[in-house]
Amino acid sequence: RVDGERLWASLMEMARIGATEKGGVSRLALTDLDREGRDLFVRWAREAGCTVRVDPMGNIFARRPGLRDGLAPVQMGSHGDSQPTGGRFDGIYGVLGGLEVVRALNDHGVQTERPIEVVNWTNEEGSRFAPAMIASGVYAGVFDLDYGLSRTDAEGRTIGAELERIGYAGDAPLGAPLPHAAFELHIEQGPVLEAEQKDIGVVTGGQGQRWYEGELTGQSAHAGTTPMNRRKDAGLGVARVIAAVHRIGLDHGPLACATVGQVAFHPNSRNVVPGRAAYTVEFRHPDDAVLDHMNAALLAAVEEIAAELSLGSSLKQIFSYAPIVFDADCVGAVRRAAAALGYSHRDIVSGAGHDACYVNRVAPTAMVFVPCVDGISHNEAEDIRQAWSTAGANVLLHAVLEKSAA
Amino acid sequence: RVDGERLWASLMEMARIGATEKGGVSRLALTDLDREGRDLFVRWAREAGCTVRVDPMGNIFARRPGLRDGLAPVQMGSHGDSQPTGGRFDGIYGVLGGLEVVRALNDHGVQTERPIEVVNWTNEEGSRFAPAMIASGVYAGVFDLDYGLSRTDAEGRTIGAELERIGYAGDAPLGAPLPHAAFELHIEQGPVLEAEQKDIGVVTGGQGQRWYEGELTGQSAHAGTTPMNRRKDAGLGVARVIAAVHRIGLDHGPLACATVGQVAFHPNSRNVVPGRAAYTVEFRHPDDAVLDHMNAALLAAVEEIAAELSLGSSLKQIFSYAPIVFDADCVGAVRRAAAALGYSHRDIVSGAGHDACYVNRVAPTAMVFVPCVDGISHNEAEDIRQAWSTAGANVLLHAVLEKSAA
Ligand SMILES: NC(=O)NCCC(=O)O
Ligand SMILES: NC(=O)NCCC(=O)O
Repeated sequence: RVDGERLWASLMEMARIGATEKGGVSRLALTDLDREGRDLFVRWAREAGCTVRVDPMGNIFARRPGLRDGLAPVQMGSHGDSQPTGGRFDGIYGVLGGLEVVRALNDHGVQTERPIEVVNWTNEEGSRFAPAMIASGVYAGVFDLDYGLSRTDAEGRTIGAELERIGYAGDAPLGAPLPHAAFELHIEQGPVLEAEQKDIGVVTGGQGQRWYEGELTGQSAHAGTTPMNRRKDAGLGVARVIAAVHRIGLDHGPLACATVGQVAFHPNSRNVVPGRAAYTVEFRHPDDAVLDHMNAALLAAVEEIAAELSLGSSLKQIFSYAPIVFDADCVGAVRRAAAALGYSHRDIVSGAGHDACYVNRVAPTAMVFVPCVDGISHNEAEDIRQAWSTAGANVLLHAVLEKSAA
Repeated sequence: RVDGERLWASLMEMARIGATEKGGVSRLALTDLDREGRDLFVRWAREAGCTVRVDPMGNIFARRPGLRDGLAPVQMGSHGDSQPTGGRFDGIYGVLGGLEVVRALNDHGVQTERPIEVVNWTNEEGSRFAPAMIASGVYAGVFDLDYGLSRTDAEGRTIGAELERIGYAGDAPLGAPLPHAAFELHIEQGPVLEAEQKDIGVVTGGQGQRWYEGELTGQSAHAGTTPMNRRKDAGLGVARVIAAVHRIGLDHGPLACATVGQVAFHPNSRNVVPGRAAYTVEFRHPDDAVLDHMNAALLAAVEEIAAELSLGSSLKQIFSYAPIVFDADCVGAVRRAAAALGYSHRDIVSGAGHDACYVNRVAPTAMVFVPCVDGISHNEAEDIRQAWSTAGANVLLHAVLEKSAA
């Protein structure tokens, strides 16, 4: 069993880096705070006897050697970046949970056949740099390295330049060695496990996603001298798009999610009719055919709004993935671990995207979920109980032990 | 007559300070670029033989002595700040038009009985610091100096601190000496004069305005795991407010203007349901009773939207003024000047707010409008013809000459 106190203490120490007044964390990818968090992880990993390597996307791998060190490793991990106003657990819990597994193996003097690696993925949130999970995506060959390094934030800074700046542009080979099996421990970020009082979610897959960026173009004009009927108000256009996206979410059943999270009006001045307005859209659903339908509804709605308001419109899908099914045997290992440890559990589909969804393309993968209070995540109020945190790491330990036999 | 070429050359030289790629100007109040523009105006004013004083709100007064220098001066002027993506004429045309009047008087060796002052008002646009016309408002006693100096921009910097920073926190007495008469030359910023092919607008008054700031509060939540029916989406709330404001504009007749120019979603992350969203509203109408009605409609709409979406709501009116009527004799002087010079002209009510609207409270005041191309303003494409620019300055010259007799 892991040392739940030690894991909790590490979580709380890490949560000080980027701590917000409201008890959350703001540690955006590749900022100075992210560097601090990375440095702390690297120090802890070395103290636990690991060797550390960093790949060109800044993904950090901490390796505990196996008895047969030439074998493919068993991988654990998640991400260390947060949302702009995020919580203390989203991502980093899976990284420090993996570290705790290594520490627990050390405590008990366990030597595994296979090497074990704890990975800290770069820019999972997709908040500073879109799309999400870009660095595990490059690792898994979904995106080119050039594409990954050239993604820009709102100020036009690239992932590549920011990695150099914070000293995490590594030269370890990308995507090698591929793991024998991979596990990601994460908070559920939804309400199901807590509502059903389950200790553990055995994650069987992830829902599909489509992400979009759109912009409407009208004419910026004086708010006091431009009659209503002479306006080309791009802000009004985006307001209608937001309403349409909400409608599309409601129209596609209880499993559909549809969100406009981000907007930018130009010039964003209170006495100017907005001449240009940008927005993001994202859709999620476990069924790809439903996502096709939502996509068609969005295109139609935006076209209609632009025509009605005499606006120019551009809309592109910047990211998508189909619903994911995790590896049956890795999922089985998680289920067996939960059962052996006496934890209540249920199968669950992830609503969020995770690095594991990309790793799953190149290696057998599964995930372990623990409940989170009120299902709240991507919010500073995000919270979990220490007992949940311990249970999740114990399941991770046992699943890893099963898979690390040669 | 003024030297139209010289005026145009000065306008073009000033427009280089903050010039945008699209041919406009971005010279927000109290930025380094605003300082550059101020320095240039001060240099030119001194070269034209004026003495320069700066008051505690950073308003710059360039004074040409009169034969009877103890008499109250005749004042001309406007503002040197611009919108974030503004044009080359909004504001600065009235400042440099005033300077051209001084230069023309010098050329012709004219000595006026009364002194003449050209004023460059601080932060007229209300874009960086709300409300608009704050510094002429303080000058006219509408606002306290403390209120004026403590207004903040989006980053929390105050007018007072920014004035100190750029070296324009002056110590000349506020609002003294009050002018005998005041004139503001400005582009129309609307389509009327051009459509009717009039050279000059004789501005008889300004419409009423109400400005608001609102915020809706929901709960920021994960966009992929939070079912549509469990969301408290503040962004959706603001989208509905924008639609309601537009409706209110349409519902109150062809003279009503209703605008949401500025929004801010929090955390403004593409995979987070916005937990908080701020917006601005402004209404304009020549009839204060109609503004009362629009106000009531806004309060009702926002309350209903907040209740429907389970959002918290705060909404406050941050600024208002009643419709303004300019001084009959100053208006007459403008009309007489236009007629004497043989310019076509018509009476017009200003859609925009102007420093003259506040000055009018403490001294007899009027305005001169010139057409602008397609009525476009608060836009980088804002444009006027050189002939229009010359005509406006000639009318200003003659109105000032009439009033500067003792
Ligand atoms: N786990 C998580 O929140 N990932 C960010 C990508 C997403 O929005 O699903
Ligand atoms: N003239 C002008 O655009 N003033 C800014 C204040 C307003 O919006 O009316």
